[in-house]
Amino acid sequence: MSDHVYKLIEVVGSSPISSDEAIKNAIEKASESLDHIGWFEVLETRGHVEDGKIAHFQVVVKVGFRLE
Amino acid sequence: MSDHVYKLIEVVGSSPISSDEAIKNAIEKASESLDHIGWFEVLETRGHVEDGKIAHFQVVVKVGFRLE
Amino acid sequence: MSDHVYKLIEVVGSSPISSDEAIKNAIEKASESLDHIGWFEVLETRGHVEDGKIAHFQVVVKVGFRLE
Amino acid sequence: MSDHVYKLIEVVGSSPISSDEAIKNAIEKASESLDHIGWFEVLETRGHVEDGKIAHFQVVVKVGFRLE
Amino acid sequence: MSDHVYKLIEVVGSSPISSDEAIKNAIEKASESLDHIGWFEVLETRGHVEDGKIAHFQVVVKVGFRLE
Amino acid sequence: MSDHVYKLIEVVGSSPISSDEAIKNAIEKASESLDHIGWFEVLETRGHVEDGKIAHFQVVVKVGFRLE
Amino acid sequence: MSDHVYKLIEVVGSSPISSDEAIKNAIEKASESLDHIGWFEVLETRGHVEDGKIAHFQVVVKVGFRLE
Amino acid sequence: MSDHVYKLIEVVGSSPISSDEAIKNAIEKASESLDHIGWFEVLETRGHVEDGKIAHFQVVVKVGFRLE
Amino acid sequence: MSDHVYKLIEVVGSSPISSDEAIKNAIEKASESLDHIGWFEVLETRGHVEDGKIAHFQVVVKVGFRLE
Amino acid sequence: MSDHVYKLIEVVGSSPISSDEAIKNAIEKASESLDHIGWFEVLETRGHVEDGKIAHFQVVVKVGFRLE
Amino acid sequence: MSDHVYKLIEVVGSSPISSDEAIKNAIEKASESLDHIGWFEVLETRGHVEDGKIAHFQVVVKVGFRLE
Amino acid sequence: MSDHVYKLIEVVGSSPISSDEAIKNAIEKASESLDHIGWFEVLETRGHVEDGKIAHFQVVVKVGFRLE
Repeated sequence: MSDHVYKLIEVVGSSPISSDEAIKNAIEKASESLDHIGWFEVLETRGHVEDGKIAHFQVVVKVGFRLE
Repeated sequence: MSDHVYKLIEVVGSSPISSDEAIKNAIEKASESLDHIGWFEVLETRGHVEDGKIAHFQVVVKVGFRLE
Repeated sequence: MSDHVYKLIEVVGSSPISSDEAIKNAIEKASESLDHIGWFEVLETRGHVEDGKIAHFQVVVKVGFRLE
Repeated sequence: MSDHVYKLIEVVGSSPISSDEAIKNAIEKASESLDHIGWFEVLETRGHVEDGKIAHFQVVVKVGFRLE
Repeated sequence: MSDHVYKLIEVVGSSPISSDEAIKNAIEKASESLDHIGWFEVLETRGHVEDGKIAHFQVVVKVGFRLE
Repeated sequence: MSDHVYKLIEVVGSSPISSDEAIKNAIEKASESLDHIGWFEVLETRGHVEDGKIAHFQVVVKVGFRLE
Repeated sequence: MSDHVYKLIEVVGSSPISSDEAIKNAIEKASESLDHIGWFEVLETRGHVEDGKIAHFQVVVKVGFRLE
Repeated sequence: MSDHVYKLIEVVGSSPISSDEAIKNAIEKASESLDHIGWFEVLETRGHVEDGKIAHFQVVVKVGFRLE
Repeated sequence: MSDHVYKLIEVVGSSPISSDEAIKNAIEKASESLDHIGWFEVLETRGHVEDGKIAHFQVVVKVGFRLE
Repeated sequence: MSDHVYKLIEVVGSSPISSDEAIKNAIEKASESLDHIGWFEVLETRGHVEDGKIAHFQVVVKVGFRLE
Repeated sequence: MSDHVYKLIEVVGSSPISSDEAIKNAIEKASESLDHIGWFEVLETRGHVEDGKIAHFQVVVKVGFRLE
Repeated sequence: MSDHVYKLIEVVGSSPISSDEAIKNAIEKASESLDHIGWFEVLETRGHVEDGKIAHFQVVVKVGFRLE
């Protein structure tokens, strides 16, 4: 790890299925434009409700990646 | 959304199966007596343990609904 | 519950499958050496990413058990 | 104030004009159904954006009122 | 505890005698209108001062009760 | 909202007039380079003082926008 | 700024008009007895309610000034 | 309350007897040099232990008083 | 104090009588197995309610002791 | 400072030598691609340990820079 | 320590050399006007950046001293 | 890392020289009795003052190690 420098960004993933799926969607979308994602951290788990049921989970994720 | 006013309440759902299921139980119970639930936010995830295994998850959820 | 005294410790469980599974792994490992675990509380949900996919979830769990 | 007991509830007011106006809307709506509101506390200031402009402010307010 | 759902509300009790007494007053008032209070959690301890002496303690308490 | 992914960034707007104006300046500047800003959240309200008067308000705002 | 040392104090300003006005009142009062106030930071926005309307806003402000 | 301005200071009271007594000691000491103390808020409750027993409680209290 | 190293652990004491008593029970239990406890810090005050009355207070305490 | 708008980003610097050195590495790396960095704020200080010794410090730094 | 009462104040020290040096400057300046400073606690570590280098560290320190 | 489980403990290191040195002392003491320490996280930086000078820094460190 020597003197590496990392950057942290926040993304929000959503999924109608589960909170873990919402995290995966956030990571996969972020990795389309970032090469060296190394870890994530969940900041907030929320969701929308329609007609008394969860329409989708929304998870705010902080993502860390190495700067080159 | 104009000048709508919303109210926030806190409910705790539980489930022996998963933390997402505990959220769903909280939302469905709350929607029995509230018509316009629009969103939720997870405040805390806890659980009870019996004989070294998770007996049930308990999730504290803040729920928002529109006042008429 | 009378005048019981409890101790709280923090463990980190990991799982390539789900965040709930990471909690279960933490509880089961902790219960190998502790007899009276009664409850847990999730403090932090994180994870490692490899090649743009979640390699494993890591969940920091506070665990409470009765002192004898 | 002797041995009075108060209750605290959370409401979200919104306004296209200003954050103070959003607080006022929350208080006035809450006072339609509650007689003894004594104070409020701002928990969160948010808002929606449309076409690069603030469409409305949303303020989460904790409101205290005396129980009779 | 199976799939029970609980609700959390916040009340403020006050007492000229002690902070514990303020908690008791909050719980007893809340239990006049709620049947299944199971636990409480202290959020904030405050008080009013008159002529350099504590006139009364005020304790903000979060109270949990089972929904039927 | 389906499976949309959002990004959150933090900007600081300033204004000699009011704290709401500082938020507006932050949002308008951010929308010059971002197309799909959907919401904001105030993180911190600060300001500079000169000769005993407020010279300008500075508001730290978290801004969310949809990734395409 | 070299090796300057600053002190931080907390003041609460109030105003029947607006939350920004309450901040201004706090700063102006503090500057009557302090010469080198350089910045402020809002810690809490609260207020009193009378007859269902906001009687005045109260803003807790942390104020920084240079020690000579 | 009109446009009054208040100042907040932090004091730590201690007592070998109880945590409430430590708060009282803090308030009474502060009121020796301040005329218009109106309220307090407990920030932290700590204490020293000697030979396995509590030697004294220490309570950090934020105290508010009116500026003239 | 030179270069001493301390360890911090969390214990939960309970008491049907008072919150201070619950702290004392936690400290006394902890001191049965630890020789050099020097201080404590209250993290959380909670309790159980039965039939509308406080059945016991539970206080989460962080305890510091010197490592030899 | 008039109506300037700033952006805040988070970077993680690391150093085998000291925590201050880790901050410096973060700032210098960030300034390679950003022209107007004005200030930083430490969010978190962490590190890796190998064979019972600190292998490197890692400091999470929030960095503010002016948008043009 | 018996029934001593302490006061806590916040000061900000700065130094071009290191964060520890900024703490020392804060303590030494504070001790010019206060006789019984007993401890400090770091609240925030920040700094100014000029031309991509740290111009000085600024550390916000809470300082406790005994009231006589 | 597969399904490893980690434990987190809190230790306080002290040093008359610097805050980094206090962290090192905490880690080295902890590694005398623990084999697999992998990382640390600074929770709090404090210190004692004697005669207006820092007598020693005290740093509260959370330390993570692998359970076997």
